[in-house]
This record gives sequence, structure tokens and C-alpha cells, in this order.
Amino acid sequence: MYQHGGDIYSYPDMLDFSANINPLGIPEQVKEAYLSSLEELTHYPDPKCRKLREAIGRKHEIPASFILCGNGAADLIFTLCFALKPKRALLPAPSFSEYARALSCVGCNIQYSFLPEKDRFAFTEQFLSDLKSFHPDIIFLCNPNNPTGQIIDHALLTEIAAYCERQKIYIVIDECFLDFTDAFSSGSLIPRLPVSNYLFILKAFTKMYALPGLRLGYFLSGNADLLQKMQSFRQPWSVSVPAQAAGTAAYAFLKEHNWEEKTRRFIKKERAFLKNSLPFSNITGKANYLFFPSHLPLSQIGRERGILIRCCKNFISLEQKNYYRIAVKTREENTKFLRLFFPEPYTGTVH
Amino acid sequence: MYQHGGDIYSYPDMLDFSANINPLGIPEQVKEAYLSSLEELTHYPDPKCRKLREAIGRKHEIPASFILCGNGAADLIFTLCFALKPKRALLPAPSFSEYARALSCVGCNIQYSFLPEKDRFAFTEQFLSDLKSFHPDIIFLCNPNNPTGQIIDHALLTEIAAYCERQKIYIVIDECFLDFTDAFSSGSLIPRLPVSNYLFILKAFTKMYALPGLRLGYFLSGNADLLQKMQSFRQPWSVSVPAQAAGTAAYAFLKEHNWEEKTRRFIKKERAFLKNSLPFSNITGKANYLFFPSHLPLSQIGRERGILIRCCKNFISLEQKNYYRIAVKTREENTKFLRLFFPEPYTGTVH
Repeated sequence: MYQHGGDIYSYPDMLDFSANINPLGIPEQVKEAYLSSLEELTHYPDPKCRKLREAIGRKHEIPASFILCGNGAADLIFTLCFALKPKRALLPAPSFSEYARALSCVGCNIQYSFLPEKDRFAFTEQFLSDLKSFHPDIIFLCNPNNPTGQIIDHALLTEIAAYCERQKIYIVIDECFLDFTDAFSSGSLIPRLPVSNYLFILKAFTKMYALPGLRLGYFLSGNADLLQKMQSFRQPWSVSVPAQAAGTAAYAFLKEHNWEEKTRRFIKKERAFLKNSLPFSNITGKANYLFFPSHLPLSQIGRERGILIRCCKNFISLEQKNYYRIAVKTREENTKFLRLFFPEPYTGTVH
Repeated sequence: MYQHGGDIYSYPDMLDFSANINPLGIPEQVKEAYLSSLEELTHYPDPKCRKLREAIGRKHEIPASFILCGNGAADLIFTLCFALKPKRALLPAPSFSEYARALSCVGCNIQYSFLPEKDRFAFTEQFLSDLKSFHPDIIFLCNPNNPTGQIIDHALLTEIAAYCERQKIYIVIDECFLDFTDAFSSGSLIPRLPVSNYLFILKAFTKMYALPGLRLGYFLSGNADLLQKMQSFRQPWSVSVPAQAAGTAAYAFLKEHNWEEKTRRFIKKERAFLKNSLPFSNITGKANYLFFPSHLPLSQIGRERGILIRCCKNFISLEQKNYYRIAVKTREENTKFLRLFFPEPYTGTVH
């Protein structure tokens, strides 16, 4: 069963608010890199992704040996699990479901640390205490978390990372949405990479460069041996020629045009607009998506009105609750969403 | 260490005879499908590859439920091993090295059945006898074999497949190069799929449609449960939007333009030309590549003269021998190859 947003193939011709992609779209130079890759498709891709890893290294100011690229970020989650074969994992709930799916493939015993609904599912000291009592081999933290959009308090995150390093617990921080938030720099654990053997950071071009269809993500780690081991747990040609070209162009373009900063400003404004316009309370979300409870059957209403939104009932710990996640898109799309969803004049909070 | 041909990134600006790609290139309609996928890159790919699997099903006259697509054929070899976790495998040697790499990832005990050099590495009854005495959980057969270009005798192959079915041994037939040979239909085990639970057939767009850079292959099996199990051992979005579009276009185009038949005629002629022009004896190869022994250091000579060819010393059982594999390309490229390699008038067999 497919568990995610963006399923426009089962529900064609809908306005898709269920996947969280940069509403500014694909930068022009990235499009050009894609188009001019056509003539290179007759060659196998570079198994070492040399140019792309150089570009990523320059962006994050880290050596290329710290970087492993993959066929989307999700691909790397599976490769990591196959390479490490962890026996015990602690996962926050709710969170992105592919961590658990990948861990299950290697027979891992998964324990959940339930994020407290009363704190709007923020990470608290409880997670650290669950970590200390469960002694896992690996943990996955999504920052900001999906679907809640909650950023992990940086002091807490640092404490968790330091504890993991001391206890030799692999810690994967999924920063795929971090660059959409104000914490893009201050909230990142990238500066810890050179002094960590157990820290992995997961990033993707998928969201910020609006390329989910092309498949391109990367892992960062100071443990180059482990990245090399991961390479031996997959085919040599995971990352396609156009994905490598598009990623390289994206980071060249970014430098010139301040793409990520422009995106953040845009998202901040639209997020506020959408949040203030929605007739719901308890809305969280620091990235390019909003998360909120509603007793209305919103997914069904949406489908009837031509809009896909993400019902969160298939997230662990949200099965019995009524939470939804919607993307922040362009003003035109956001307005259309509001008009289709709430055709009557809005007179008060529905929930 | 990279173990294959086509490494144009370590050796740039060379004429590449080390990868075996259709010299006719990418069909025009496939190029168009790639280019027009640009606007769809902002969506996640269809996890079920619905349109593509329909197109593949129509081509092979099998139901879509028999088909699982992947990020290149090599990707599927790994996914199969992760899903099945076989304990014992029998592999022919020499053969494509990714079977052993993937099996090693799940700690499989690999036994080799050495193909006899005196028979130019053809499959003989010896393989069947090794199969019966070793009792593996799985075998991988490449037909025609890589790097030898030898087609497995069909009566022998049928006997092996029937034995595997009776003994519940998974049998993977890699037919990635079969469509380049005269045995494209008579040599295929596709007709056995509906009556087999243990048979897998691996095909790719890589070679015939000259798309190694895009990554697209597929598994065929009558065991739909197992294909579904494989899906749970990987991310939902393995096959990119442009790969799905290009594959769908390729099989629509094929029907209209008889692409594979044209390719076979072209390759047959050029294979004969190249084979007759090479100053070597004992050349085998029924597909779009030739395989032969030579005591000359051909890879080194090639690199000095701007040509990449495939030295076969890293194939199991060929370590101490001097075999090479070269692609069959266009007349212009083949002539250039011969001119660069053998600048002096040819006066006799060198080997």
C-alpha cells in the first residue's frame, strides 16, 4: 500500500496539496542541465558522482569524501539499513514512515518514542530519556519533522547527538525540509560532521529544487568508511546522468541567485497567509507545509472538490486522530485552495 | 572498486568500446518523451509504474502483474537478493559480477560452476550436474552470457529451468542482451512464466534503447506475490518520471518501427565485419559484443590510442587469462577502432 502524499496517478487532474514541493518550481538553469543531458543518456552514469559531489562539497564546505549520493533520499535510507543491519531502532512517532519500512527489511526491532500531542508533537526531554532506556543501535530524527513541521530544539538535538556519539548509536538527521525554515543554518548538524563517527545527515534536491520526479538525494557523514560500505550494498549506477547534471547545476545556480533564500522568504509569507486564512486552530509548521487537526473529513471533501491533501491517519500514533497536512504553494494556488475548500464566507473557527 | 566497462569518467574523451550499447542510439520518439518529461519532474513518479508496465505487458503479451520495474536491471538484482535472502547460490563463471556482489550483501554462500575454456566458455551439462550436487536456493544465468556472448543451448536451459521449478530453486535469467541475437524469441524463457513460481527474467532498456544513463530495467515473474514482496524491500519511488516516460515511448515506438529487428540486422552485419577484421582467433559473441583472448596488452594499447576496451581479468575464472570484450558499434566507429588499433597493414593472425 502506498503511504505518502503526491499520488496524482491514483487521483489524476487534482490540485496537489499533499506533496511538499517548492512552489517556485525548477530553476531555469536546472531545467537546461536536464535537457542537455539528453545526449549523455547513452553513457552509464559516473558511479562516483564526481562533479555532483564536488558541487555538494562546495555548498556545505565539506570534503567530497563525506558525501554519498542516491536515487532520492529514500533510496539512501534503505541502503543504510542494508549496510548496517541494525538490531534495535528508536523512532519518534509520528514521523516519516520510510525509516520504519527500511528498518523492517533487516528484521530490526523498532521501538517508538511517542511525541506528546499536548505539546503539538514537539520533541521533548522524553525522547532523550527513551533513548537512554532503550539503548538502540540507530535512531532517525526528521528535522523539521514530517508531518508536524516541528523543529527540534537545538540544545536538545545537540544533547541527543552527543549522547549518541558517546554511546556509539548511529543517528540519522533527515534535514530534507530544513532549508525551508529560518533554522536552515543554525538548526543543522552539518558542523558536527568532522568530529562524528555516528552522525548521518540526509538531504535532497527533491523539495527545494522541485525535482521529486528525477530522484536525487544525498547522505553526509564524517565516517567515510561507512559511506564506502554503503556503496557495496547497492548497484554501481544508482544516480542517473540527468540527476547528476541537474544537482550540479542546482548548486551552481544557488550560489549565483540565492535560490534558497528567495524560497524561504516566499514560503514564510505564503505560510503565514495560508495559516491565517485557514479556519482551524492548533496549526503547526515551520517549513513548506502546515499540520493541524480537524474533525471534518477533509481528504474526502478535498477529493470531491478537486484537491489532494494529506490525511495523516497512516502515521504511527495518529491512527485514531484526525490530523491533516497541506503544502504551502503559490498565492494563486493557496487562494484557489481556500476558495474551493471554503466556498461560503468564513465566519468563525470550524474546528 | 569499479568493475565494469563504460568508465568514461576515469578516462574521458576516449572512443568507448567497453560498454555494449545499441550503436543506433536512442530512437527519436524516446528522446521526445525524455524532453517532454521536464514539466513532470515536479511530481513524484508513479510508484506502480502503471503506464510503463502496461506497455511492457503489451510487448511481451503478459499481464502487468508479472512486471516489476527498477532503477536499471542491476537495481533489481539487489532488491531480489534483499527480499529473498538466499543462503546458497550457484553462479556460472565467468559471468556478470553484480549477481555475486548482490548475493554477498545478504551473506549468501556462493559456489561457482566454471564454464569450460575448451568449449569457449559455453554452458554444458556440467552446469546441470553442479546444480544437482550443490542444491542452491538460487541461480543466476546470463543469456547470452556476459562477457562471452555465448547463448545457452535451449534444450539445456529448459532442462535447468524445469529442474529448478521442481526443486523450488529460484532461477534468474538475465536476458538483457538476448534481443540483440537471433535467439531473441526462440531463446527466451518468457513463455514459461505463467507456469513457473521460481522463474525470474531480467530485461533492460539500457542496451537496446541506448539509455544506460537513464536507468531502467524490469523483472518478469509469474510469482506476483514475490514481486510485491520485492516492492516492500525498497523505496516507493525507484523509477524516475523520465525513465517511465522513455520506456513507455520506447515500446510504443518499437511496435511502429520494428526497432529491435532493425537493430539485430545492423548488429549482425557489423559483428561479422568486426569479427572478420580483427587479427584474433577464437572470437565468440552472438550479441553486440565480441570476446576473445590475446596476449597483447590490449587495454593499455587502447588507452594509449584513445580507445576504451574491456579487459576481462576481473571476471571470476579469468583472473590468470588474457581475455578482452569489445562492443560492436557503427561501421564508422568500428573502422576507426581497427585503424587506431592496427595502424600497420595486417599480415596475419597476431595471437
